[in-house]
Formats: sequence, C-alpha cells, structure tokens
Amino acid sequence: MSSYADRLAALRQQLSADRLDGFVVPLTDEHMSEYVGSYAQRLAWLTGFEGSAGSAVVLPAEAAIFTDGRYTLQVRAQVDGEQWSFQSVPETSIAAWLKEQAPEGARIGYDPWLHSRSWVKQASEALSARGAELVPVSANPIDKVWSDRPAASNAKLAVHPERLAGRSSADKRQEIADWLTGQGADAAVLAALDSIAWTFNIRGSDVSHTPVALAYALVRSDGTADLFVAGEKVDAELRQHLGNGVRLHERAAFEAALGELAGKTVAVDPERSVAAITQALDKAGAKVVSLRDPTVLSRAIKNEAELAGHRAAQLRDGAAMARFLRWVEVKAPGGALDELAASDKLEALRRENPELKDLSFDSISGAGPNGAIVHYRSSEKTNRKLESGSLYLIDSGGQYEDGTTDITRTLAIGEPTAEMRDRFTRVLKGHIALATAVFPKSTKGGQLDSFARRPLWEAGLDYAHGTGHGVGSFLSVHEGPQRIAPVGGAYAGGDEPLAAGMILSNEPGYYKTGEYGIRIENLVLVVPVTIEGAEKEMLGFETLTFAPIERRLVDVALLSDAELAWFNDYHRQVRERIGPQLEGEERQWLERQCAPLSR
Amino acid sequence: MSSYADRLAALRQQLSADRLDGFVVPLTDEHMSEYVGSYAQRLAWLTGFEGSAGSAVVLPAEAAIFTDGRYTLQVRAQVDGEQWSFQSVPETSIAAWLKEQAPEGARIGYDPWLHSRSWVKQASEALSARGAELVPVSANPIDKVWSDRPAASNAKLAVHPERLAGRSSADKRQEIADWLTGQGADAAVLAALDSIAWTFNIRGSDVSHTPVALAYALVRSDGTADLFVAGEKVDAELRQHLGNGVRLHERAAFEAALGELAGKTVAVDPERSVAAITQALDKAGAKVVSLRDPTVLSRAIKNEAELAGHRAAQLRDGAAMARFLRWVEVKAPGGALDELAASDKLEALRRENPELKDLSFDSISGAGPNGAIVHYRSSEKTNRKLESGSLYLIDSGGQYEDGTTDITRTLAIGEPTAEMRDRFTRVLKGHIALATAVFPKSTKGGQLDSFARRPLWEAGLDYAHGTGHGVGSFLSVHEGPQRIAPVGGAYAGGDEPLAAGMILSNEPGYYKTGEYGIRIENLVLVVPVTIEGAEKEMLGFETLTFAPIERRLVDVALLSDAELAWFNDYHRQVRERIGPQLEGEERQWLERQCAPLSR
Repeated sequence: MSSYADRLAALRQQLSADRLDGFVVPLTDEHMSEYVGSYAQRLAWLTGFEGSAGSAVVLPAEAAIFTDGRYTLQVRAQVDGEQWSFQSVPETSIAAWLKEQAPEGARIGYDPWLHSRSWVKQASEALSARGAELVPVSANPIDKVWSDRPAASNAKLAVHPERLAGRSSADKRQEIADWLTGQGADAAVLAALDSIAWTFNIRGSDVSHTPVALAYALVRSDGTADLFVAGEKVDAELRQHLGNGVRLHERAAFEAALGELAGKTVAVDPERSVAAITQALDKAGAKVVSLRDPTVLSRAIKNEAELAGHRAAQLRDGAAMARFLRWVEVKAPGGALDELAASDKLEALRRENPELKDLSFDSISGAGPNGAIVHYRSSEKTNRKLESGSLYLIDSGGQYEDGTTDITRTLAIGEPTAEMRDRFTRVLKGHIALATAVFPKSTKGGQLDSFARRPLWEAGLDYAHGTGHGVGSFLSVHEGPQRIAPVGGAYAGGDEPLAAGMILSNEPGYYKTGEYGIRIENLVLVVPVTIEGAEKEMLGFETLTFAPIERRLVDVALLSDAELAWFNDYHRQVRERIGPQLEGEERQWLERQCAPLSR
Repeated sequence: MSSYADRLAALRQQLSADRLDGFVVPLTDEHMSEYVGSYAQRLAWLTGFEGSAGSAVVLPAEAAIFTDGRYTLQVRAQVDGEQWSFQSVPETSIAAWLKEQAPEGARIGYDPWLHSRSWVKQASEALSARGAELVPVSANPIDKVWSDRPAASNAKLAVHPERLAGRSSADKRQEIADWLTGQGADAAVLAALDSIAWTFNIRGSDVSHTPVALAYALVRSDGTADLFVAGEKVDAELRQHLGNGVRLHERAAFEAALGELAGKTVAVDPERSVAAITQALDKAGAKVVSLRDPTVLSRAIKNEAELAGHRAAQLRDGAAMARFLRWVEVKAPGGALDELAASDKLEALRRENPELKDLSFDSISGAGPNGAIVHYRSSEKTNRKLESGSLYLIDSGGQYEDGTTDITRTLAIGEPTAEMRDRFTRVLKGHIALATAVFPKSTKGGQLDSFARRPLWEAGLDYAHGTGHGVGSFLSVHEGPQRIAPVGGAYAGGDEPLAAGMILSNEPGYYKTGEYGIRIENLVLVVPVTIEGAEKEMLGFETLTFAPIERRLVDVALLSDAELAWFNDYHRQVRERIGPQLEGEERQWLERQCAPLSR
C-alpha cells in the first residue's frame, strides 16, 4: 500500500499528463449521497481523512483540505500537514481559495459527476476572475492512479414488498407521471439513490447503513420508466417485480440515454443531481427544467403501512435499547467497560432481532469528554473507559425491513454532579417543549427549533447543531426535505412546511468540551391535532421511540408540573410497550426505570 | 373636482398622446417610502383607493387594481368596479397579469422613479415573453392630467440637536466614508428619507407622521456629502448646522449630479432606491455596486443619548395613555363614547405635552368587530360606539423630539365573556414569553417569533401578522432592518440578527372576525444579559413602554407563577414611573390598576 505522499505525487503526475494544473476532490459520489461506497471514497484514499464532510484541492505546489469546525482536530490527526494545508469552511471555500491561489491562466480540473451545477457555476466564476479556467474531466484522474480501487458493489437488488411500502411502484410512477404532465415535462431524472429505491420499491446494499443500490432512473410522463443498474444485480424475481413498465439498462448506459432526449422537456433537481447530467441534457438539445425531485415530499410523508412498520421496528429497537441500558448499569461499576465494548454489545442485542438488516449508521459511543464530540466515532486509539462520575452518550439506530430507527440516550456512570443534572434537565425540558408543541398546518421546522433551545438559553448555553432531521422508511436515516433547525443556518430544510406523516428526530443536546456530552433523542411523527374551538388545522408530534430516559440525571425541581407529567406518562408508555418483551431481571429493571418520578 | 371615470379617461388620452398602450401606477414615492406626501398619492387620485398597499395598471380597454387580502373589502367599497377589475396579490401580480392581458407588441409605460430595479427586471421579462415592452417615461403621465395636484411640501428643515442624536453628522458621515473605503467605493447614494434625516441630523415635515424631508444625498469617501433638497426649506441655522462638509443643491439637481459620476464606484441599496437612480449611474458610466444602505444598521442600534430620549418620551406617553385608559373606563359606561371621540381624546391628552410633534401614525381605534380589522382606520362611516360587553382596541403612538412611541391596549367595556378573557390571557402569555426571552448574540428575530404564538397555537388559534417591528428615534415608527416574524413570510427582516440597542415592538394579538380584536403592544429594547456560567454572549429584552394592561381581561388561572410575577412586576414599574405624573383620581385609578393580581 502506497503512502499518502506517494498518492499525492502520483496524482500530480497524472494531472500533468492530463494537461491540468490542479484538481478538486469532493467527498460525495455520482448521486450526491451523504454516505458513499468504498469505490467512491477518493478523498479518504488521497488524504487519509475519514470525516463525513470535506473536500480538497491539489495544485502543482500547493494542496489544501477543507473541513468545517467539527473536524478541526480530526483532520490534523489524520492528514499529513507537511503535504496538505488545513482550511476551514465557512471562513473560506474552495472557490475563494482558488481565487487566491490558482496560478493565472491555470486549468483546474473537476469531475462533473461529483459536483452540483451551482458549485460549478460558482467555482468557474471565481477562477475566471483570476484569469484561470475550471475544466471538466472525462475520466477522474484519481481513478487512474488508485491501483487497488475497490470495484463498485455488485450486491443483489431486493424487492421491498408492497405490504411494507404501502403502495405499488406502478402507483408511485403514475403519481410522478401526473406531476410531469402538470409541469408540461416529458421525463424526470432521478439520481438520488433513495428516490430510486422508493420509486421502484427496491432496496440494495451498495452503501453501508443505507439500503440503496447504485442506479439512475428516468420516469416518463406515460408512467413507464428506465432504470439504469448493473445487470448482475437483477434476478428473475426482481425483474418480475419491476414489470413491463420498467425498461432495464446497464448503469453505464445512463449518459448515453440522456443523449437521446433531444427536444424533450426533462425535470432535473439541481440539489439532487450532478452537473454532468444537466451538461449531457444541454448537449443533447433537451430542455432542462429545474424542479425538486418529485418523490421527495411523497417519500417524506409516510403512509399507514410505513407507519405500522415503523412502530413495529421501534418496539423491537426499544427492547434492545432497554436491555443495553440495563447491561451498562450492571457492567459499568466494575470500571472495565469501554466505548467499543458497549457499542459492540448494543449491536449484538439489536442483531438478536432477525428483522435487523444493518445499523442505520455507525454508533456514536462517547464516554466522558468523547461524548462532547458531536460526530464522534470511537476507535481503538480513542476508546475510553466508562468511568465513575462521568456521562456516557450513545447515539445509534437500526435498519429493519419495516423501518429505520435513531435514538440517543445519555447515562450517568456512578454519581453525577449537580451541574450534569442541571444541564441534562434543561436538555430534557427542551426535548419536552418540542415533543408537546402544537402548531398550525404549514408551520416550518425552523419556527419550532427555538422551543428546544430556550431552557438552555436561559442558562447562557446552546448546542451547535440542528434539533431534528427527517428519517426514511428502511431508507436514509437522514432524509429531507424537512428539518427542525434555524432557517438560513448550516442545514437546509428549516424552511420546509411540516406535514402530517413526516418522521423527524427530536434531539437537543449540550456539550461541555473536554468534560461530557448530553443528548436526548427520540423520533417523532407529525400528526393532526384536534382542539375544540380551533380556527385552523393544527399539527403536533407523536413520539415514536420508547426506551427509558436516565432518571438519575433529572433534577425534578427544574421541571414544571406539565413537564413532570410528560416524563411520567412517557415512561408509562415505555413500560407498557417494551415491558412485555423483557423477562426476569430485565423486566424488573425496566419497571423500576419507568416508575413515576415525584417531587 | 373630476370624477374617477373622467380621470381614467384623461389618463388614457394622455397615454395615447405619449404613444403608450398602458401604464403602471404604484403606491410609493421616489424614495420608496411607506407613507408618502399628498403630491405623490397618484394611486388614490386615480382610483379613490386609500389603503396603504396596492398598485394599478391601465390598458386601453382594461384597468386593474391590485391589493392584498387586508384590503379585499375596502378596495371594493372605494373603487368603481365598472371601471376597474379587482386583482388579489399574491395570487397574481402586475407582471403575471400583464403577461396575460397586455396586447402583443404593446408599449407599457412605467415611471422609473417609482419602481425598484428588481421590479423593472421582472416586469420587463414578463412583458417580453408576451412580445410586449416595458418603457420608462421621462415625465409621469398622471402628473400631466392631475390638474389640481398638490405641490410637494415646502416645510422648513429643522436641526435634530446632537444632545438627542448622540453623534454629530460629521461623525456619521465619517463612518460612512470609512465603510466606503473598505468597500473600495467612492460614494454612496442615500435615497431613503430616514437615512438622510439620520445622517445629517435633520428632521422635516413633508410626510404625515414621519418627520422626514424630501431629499437625496451622496456621501463621499472623504466624508463630505451632497444634499439635494429644495432651497426654500433651508435657513441660515440649518446651513450652519450642516457646515462646509455638506454641499447643498436643489433636489431637482440630483439626477444631473448622478450623471457626473463617470468612472466612480457608487454604492446603491437596491431595496432602498428606485430604478431611475441605477439607470442614471449606468448611463453616466459609473460602476454601481449593490450594497445595503450603510446607515441602516447604525440607525437601528440606538446610542445612549437616543435611548435616554426614548425613555423620557415613553414616560410622557405612558402618562397620557394612563389618563386616556381611565377616561375610557369612566366615560364608556354611559354608552355614548365612540371610536372617533376616543382617538380624538387620546390625541388631545398627548398634545398636552409640548414635546409632542405629531402622532407616529393614524390611531387604530376599533370598537367591537372593528377591532378585528388589523389595519382599521375609523371614519364617520364606520365609527362605532364602545358598547357594553365588547372589547375596544387602541393602537397609537407619538412623535416626540426625543423618541417615537407605539403602544396598543385592549379594554373590556362592561363585563367580558370567558372566551374574551381566555383569548386575552393567551395573548398576554405570548407577550410575556417574548418579553422574557433570553437568546445568544446573532439570534434572528425569526427564531423568537413562535414564543409569542405558542399559547394561542395551543388553543388552535393564531394571528396573521408579524410579532414585532423596529422603531426609529424621532423617525419612522416602522424601521428596519430587524423584525420578529417568521423567516420567509410576508415581511422582510425576520432573518436579521438582533443586536443590543435595537428597539422593537412586542405585539401579539388575536382577532375574531365580526366580534372583537385583541392586541397587547409594548416596545422593547435588545439588551445584553449577564448569566453566571454563560458560555455565550447573551441578549434579552428590556420593556420600554409603561401603561396598565387591562387586568379585568386576565384569567389568572391560565398564568404560570413566573407569568403572574412578570405581570405584577410590570405594573409595579408602571406605578413607579407613571404615578408621579398623575394626581388625584387619576393617580388613585393608576394605583388600583397596578395593584398586584393574585390567584
């Protein structure tokens, strides 16, 4: 295996052969996925950086890696500072940096299959102000020098049965067709992998933790579709499931198929498809209309079958969590338990359910100060013991065939301090304020975010992340379009109106750097709320996640009567729903955890 | 006086003479003012419409007037439906309507001194899609046929003394000059009348209720300025106040002065200046950079002298309000009191203060169902008695030399119903939730808006307006850039970070159409808040307005202990601050109103 210095040198040599003066390396794939397959992890291969967000630029004499505040420490630990300079976004950006650093007249390459159209526009303008040029490459130069690059996964596609999906693929395609007709368009490009999985009622295993398959699709205004996916993934059952309305093609044939759309009006989502798609359509003489992927909102609003599945998955997941929480309580006092052992145990308990297909993401298992790192991922190097007098934060979830879960609990190991209890109780008050919110139809997630922060604000505290994200149905654990976060902040989606049937997380937190982290996360469902005398259609939340919340961290004196009643009612439900799945000492432990708190 | 039908016919004849096929009539002036002088009230002259927002288009055979939902009834009452068709925004727009209605090849005129650049761009594109053309006129055709058009006001300019402004005009101009240097620009155009009044420490009386004068200004990067204002407005004292750094020109010379900026880089605020200004600069060969008016944020953040003045004005205003509230309580039971008599009395009480220069807007004096009309303005035709068993809403304010006030109170006339008390108490809870909010520096008004709505949401209710607007220092009663309102809603400003020194209104409400309206409005100041152990710079609000809030409408059972404590503490402050200005029965009445409420 070559050194990172060798890789950088090899890339520079390749760029020179390709007559390029630089190259931009993003962290995404051809589908703008959040998690990408190993074949597409070019940034990690080139630099060693393993975070979930970042990008790099290589020039003849300079190389820079761009990360945000979450990865300030990690990038310096993983990437060679001799070879790479560290750049922080949003203080700078690739475009701004290139505007300063690119040699005049330089040709800077980019792979049009890995960037959005808006990024290309912005970077082109920045470079042209410098007298330099942004140049699309026809083959990614990293792929030419990455000799042991993994092949794209050849995992089989599976049918997602209609009893779980709640609707047939034909029905979904007809909905898209009707929408296309209304928009005066002939076809829609689907490039986002979860859009394709949802539309065709198929699931894959090409990406860790997200059950999608590498594919593209074109859905036509007559309700038929073209699905571009490796032939080796498709068996007879799947072919039969797709039916005559779906024409199968190799994934590699997608670009050529775009070239055949001359004269057609084609809907493309600029946020969910790469620049190469629009460029190919433009070249073909198709008319591109920028419209949101028509599956996004339909997918976010879960139907009855999906909700029934989700509830069933939550019961299984909650029982595994309850058993895990008890196990930590029993094992931790010995002092031998560490982060990796704990997350391994939780995975093992989840896997006792045969319905579990995968975890929904790499568990965040953070003891003491590691709990304060919001996107922490434990490793042999960082692994910590769960020490007495500390907090332990565990954020995890499961991919079940009938639903995707995501839950965070924070536990006191030994005796917590008064400050820990104060902070935990404020986070709990914020969690309850959001869980009990009632709001008019068409209210946006951004209008609710501050409810969860106010109890922390009152102590001069806050948390540097959003409060809630959407969650898929046996799909992405982070699913748009809705989000509970300040509008105009770091995350998109706070301006999306909430609608009945959407699932979101409710996860306020508090992080004391170097000491501890606290987060309380349940999933919630947007539901209609009936109020006597109401003048508007009102919505609220139904909590979907059931597992005990650490009672030893609650300072009851800080709770209002209504908050205390919520806490006790929630635990009554946990006991009723999870209890029947537990036996013996585990059952008794749950009963104790769910007994009412009083003043 | 000609009939409206005659006026429309005369305009059409003029358009024909000017070789135009249509003309667009907005409701604003050359400064994009919210309130405009009588000389600029072209829409009202042409159509009879007296609302505060609207526009019209005249074609050879069609004429349409465009208003929003607030004016659906009023526009039909005031404008002749035989001559005009009624169009609703945002369902349609002038651009969308012209795209449908303009004859192919038509030349549609507009006055570039009355429209923003972005409007011109949008309307031009819509017309060009129709094969028609948007054409600037060099003289407004309405002015040619409006024979008895009032002249622009020739009121004298007054010096706004430095003891009230807190800073010299030279100091403000130097701040603008430093900003221009930082931006690499040579001059800034100031077209907004309050920006000019603030920059030069001058006040005028050309527009009702807002103490501004018709003027333009250019501030240069050397700290000098050109002020374009009618010479008859300027006396020796004012000339001396302005000093040598300010070159005086006639207002009519402004356009020619723009023509002399060839080669200069000129900062223009596209939201606060009309298209004609940019067009003149483009034509002159100046380089236009679109930047926010550099005075906007400085003006919004009040200095110590302005705050001291504001507090003094509030005490005077609060005493007048208290005397008025008692007067209503004494007079209303006779059944003879009506809306106009009440607002006249309030004005008379305010005018007992020699410091009062004007009201800050036309009082909203709404009895019973009229209180439910958010932008109600009482007239002989709509005037209602304050009847027993009803509510009375009074929203009013004063322009004092040292500060601008804005206050709303809602009174029970006779015995209120349980529903009225419930609704009033929910509005009060929302008012308190906002008044007591604590939030990190850089929080936007849009993040706080929902605090004021939640108690209403919990009953399935809401209000269809923002929660708070900025307020000037002896300037506009509606002043940007900050606002407490949902981001992306009808009003701009919810995305502006709040900063210490900003004054805003806190005015949640509830409106039951056909029955009653409730609003509780105080002004608040953004202040730093010190919290032990805080990890961030925190801000909060200090309430600036002091007048009793109707205790007979409070259902104490609905208030939390903290809310009840706020209510009682507020009235303790009202008694302490306002009491010393009252005597005899008025003083005794205030003591009773301010006595603590208990359960």
